[in-house]
Amino acid sequence: MEKTIEQKFMDLLKEQSSYSEAIGLMAWDMRTKAPKKGMDNRSEVLGVLSQKVHELQTSSEMKHYIESLKGHTDDPIITKAVEEAEEEYERTAKVPTEEYRAYVTLQSKAEAMWGEAKANNDFESFRPYLEELVEYNKKFAKYWGYEGNIYDALLHNYEPGVTVAKLDEVFPKVRKALTGLLEKIKTAPVQPDPTILQGHFPKAQQETFSEEILKRMGYDFDAGRLDETVHPFAIGLNKNDVRVTTKYDEADFRTAVFGTIHEGGHALYEQNISENLAFTPLATGTSMGIHESQSLFWENFVSRSESFWENHYDLFKSHAPDRFNELPLDEFYRAVNEVKPSFIRIEADELTYCLHIMVRYELEKALINSEIEVKDLPALWNQKMEDYFGIKPENDAEGVLQDIHWAGGDFGYFPSYALGYMYAAQFANRLNEEISMEEVIKAGDFKQIQEWLTQNIHQFGKMKKPLEILTDVTGEELNSQYLIDYLTEKYQKIYQF
Amino acid sequence: MEKTIEQKFMDLLKEQSSYSEAIGLMAWDMRTKAPKKGMDNRSEVLGVLSQKVHELQTSSEMKHYIESLKGHTDDPIITKAVEEAEEEYERTAKVPTEEYRAYVTLQSKAEAMWGEAKANNDFESFRPYLEELVEYNKKFAKYWGYEGNIYDALLHNYEPGVTVAKLDEVFPKVRKALTGLLEKIKTAPVQPDPTILQGHFPKAQQETFSEEILKRMGYDFDAGRLDETVHPFAIGLNKNDVRVTTKYDEADFRTAVFGTIHEGGHALYEQNISENLAFTPLATGTSMGIHESQSLFWENFVSRSESFWENHYDLFKSHAPDRFNELPLDEFYRAVNEVKPSFIRIEADELTYCLHIMVRYELEKALINSEIEVKDLPALWNQKMEDYFGIKPENDAEGVLQDIHWAGGDFGYFPSYALGYMYAAQFANRLNEEISMEEVIKAGDFKQIQEWLTQNIHQFGKMKKPLEILTDVTGEELNSQYLIDYLTEKYQKIYQF
Repeated sequence: MEKTIEQKFMDLLKEQSSYSEAIGLMAWDMRTKAPKKGMDNRSEVLGVLSQKVHELQTSSEMKHYIESLKGHTDDPIITKAVEEAEEEYERTAKVPTEEYRAYVTLQSKAEAMWGEAKANNDFESFRPYLEELVEYNKKFAKYWGYEGNIYDALLHNYEPGVTVAKLDEVFPKVRKALTGLLEKIKTAPVQPDPTILQGHFPKAQQETFSEEILKRMGYDFDAGRLDETVHPFAIGLNKNDVRVTTKYDEADFRTAVFGTIHEGGHALYEQNISENLAFTPLATGTSMGIHESQSLFWENFVSRSESFWENHYDLFKSHAPDRFNELPLDEFYRAVNEVKPSFIRIEADELTYCLHIMVRYELEKALINSEIEVKDLPALWNQKMEDYFGIKPENDAEGVLQDIHWAGGDFGYFPSYALGYMYAAQFANRLNEEISMEEVIKAGDFKQIQEWLTQNIHQFGKMKKPLEILTDVTGEELNSQYLIDYLTEKYQKIYQF
Repeated sequence: MEKTIEQKFMDLLKEQSSYSEAIGLMAWDMRTKAPKKGMDNRSEVLGVLSQKVHELQTSSEMKHYIESLKGHTDDPIITKAVEEAEEEYERTAKVPTEEYRAYVTLQSKAEAMWGEAKANNDFESFRPYLEELVEYNKKFAKYWGYEGNIYDALLHNYEPGVTVAKLDEVFPKVRKALTGLLEKIKTAPVQPDPTILQGHFPKAQQETFSEEILKRMGYDFDAGRLDETVHPFAIGLNKNDVRVTTKYDEADFRTAVFGTIHEGGHALYEQNISENLAFTPLATGTSMGIHESQSLFWENFVSRSESFWENHYDLFKSHAPDRFNELPLDEFYRAVNEVKPSFIRIEADELTYCLHIMVRYELEKALINSEIEVKDLPALWNQKMEDYFGIKPENDAEGVLQDIHWAGGDFGYFPSYALGYMYAAQFANRLNEEISMEEVIKAGDFKQIQEWLTQNIHQFGKMKKPLEILTDVTGEELNSQYLIDYLTEKYQKIYQF
């Protein structure tokens, strides 16, 4: 029997997602297990498979299925899959193939140059590449189109529905609140002592504790694994194979413990997407921001909370070196929540983290809007660090060169981190209306939390857009007040200002 | 500039080998690391990618390149690659697509049924599947064509150039010699005591010793890794990423130690193929038999030798439980070389191993030649076991049902194991004419051995056919006498008959 057009379309999506699973596994392998000499060959193989996915996404077959099925199917999954496929098709079709190829080549060169520039603390050697990347992004933004600000076209790639107008409404409020809190914290009467956390903590013990917490969160080890890596990540190959990676610092357990919980939050999202979406592009988190809301929800709202440690401090001590037996819970809790202005985003505490994002957002928005030039970035960066944090980087390696994102051409990505944080605060507030998170966390009953997140967020995969999720769950649009209130309350209590 | 037809052909081969690398990684992952719940999805992904490779191999593009390039290129690599591609194309084209699809379905059903039949010791439930598999293989053999015996067409898939005529000349000699040796061993004055090897041997210590030996063999850990699995294997994703797996039995270290060395022999082959063959179908071992010759060379001719243990017993003891300190080298050496008729091929000793292969070869040759019927297999199997080993299986699970090969339709494969062993003996003999293996092994100077193997065998990948390698290296055709002499000498000395 001849296949229906729906079946043929689904077959094509399955082929595409099969390549994606292979690509995902190869990426995981390269970052965890692969022998170093095989990297060159592997990169070529990845190139071939990525090219294949690109070909399928922009094939005449795909175009035909989209045109035939759009508005002509009753199946809600196929409807959404057609929407996704169409968006991908259009987005790609709008950029001339030659330009896109040149851009891909530029990206990989720029990433290599960035690595050297960072190592040599030499922004100038990276500048021409960054300038080109910015120009390409401006051009692409114009190809893709936008209604308000040109930067909206880039935001759309990571957080569809979010605009500059929206960000410029909420971000300054957050920035003002956070810089205000930071000022108070600096001169607060109580100051946590993070040195009490430091000292040798064997990797194997960090690992068993991290695994135990992942299990308690509801992470399914029969559908995933935990491995070591340099730059931690979580990756969903399919909903039944979602892998977490972490990094063990034997001088500071916080890296592994909070890092694993963070990645575990991402992993729970991918593990709990509806089985019905398998082998479609809908079988993944709906956006960078919503994904980050899940990792930050678990990392900050759960595992950095007082009630979490009330419940888990004994377990922690059973895995930790003996010196923690002498350390009172309240001192421990304050220490793991120390706030301290610092240069490096990925090492930032819960409060200053968003300020790091603001610096990047404001600069990249201005770049894409041609309001500033690449050559001015280092000075502007340092100025903003001084304005928001009261500290100034000594060099560009700990300043403008610290992140790889721009070298990869990822403009419009950074805001997702702060958006995720705001979403998480909004979700936490909503969940608190149904159950007391404090009580549930204190009871170690994470199942209730995990089920609520699955019910409200995870299961949908890409069946709902990020802002649709947000309003469906909270009844509200993006609102930074919940995050501000949460941080204010938490840190007032810790620092007693 | 328009690409030449050579370039286009090489691009197609590169695409094909990229999928193969992805398939290889997925297979490795499934057998070592992958979470169990992801297996179903992964199987589907593997199906999609394998289908893709099949499509490329039989594409009209491929046909066009083969026709255009055959006899019209001076490049020796392209010439060989065209030959390989043509053979694959022809082989596939000769089998009607529908029949091949039905066969693939049958294979996976038969493997599942075999698993159950073996568990339940119930040959009858598996019989109809095996009958169908035999019929398909006969039919395919006719499609593929042959000059002498119909079974030659199947042999060709695993060991091109080897025929029934050849096997029927050498195998009986080997069988006769081995059964003769076995008789003498049974009543020999000295009998090794394998119980002295048994007892708890922690996995971690087996692992460090195995790693150390792999390194000494010349296995490059920067281009590979060692992992744990259930059914050990080595796999080359590319020459710079060749992975070894092993199995640790804490009650018997021999499984891991000799198993790792065996797989290490396969891995050295793949790691030392010429870089020039990368991304072509020539970048792998030339046949099952030559591959097996490399693993058996290291396992038997090197690591089961007296000189090996003269050198490595101290190292071994430094990794082993204390009880080995009391155990004299000569007793240890005799014990690891114990010969004992047994039912299970994969647990067989160095001497009886070939007899297990004879049983299978004789039966499958008769099946394909319609001289016997599937229903008669269990009785015939048991009879042969009695004739060659003097023992009779109690049930079919430890008899005719023990191996998965026939359930996968792999007829013509088993002889490679014995061929590999004969090749290895011939290579060892040749090498001994140049250097004294005994001295080199005693000195732990494996580099000389590894370089000789690379020079004479490994580097060529599939640039030479198996029998071409054999005659180029040894100046002789297949000759079983070297194996017979080696085993006779070795076991006369151990058993003192």
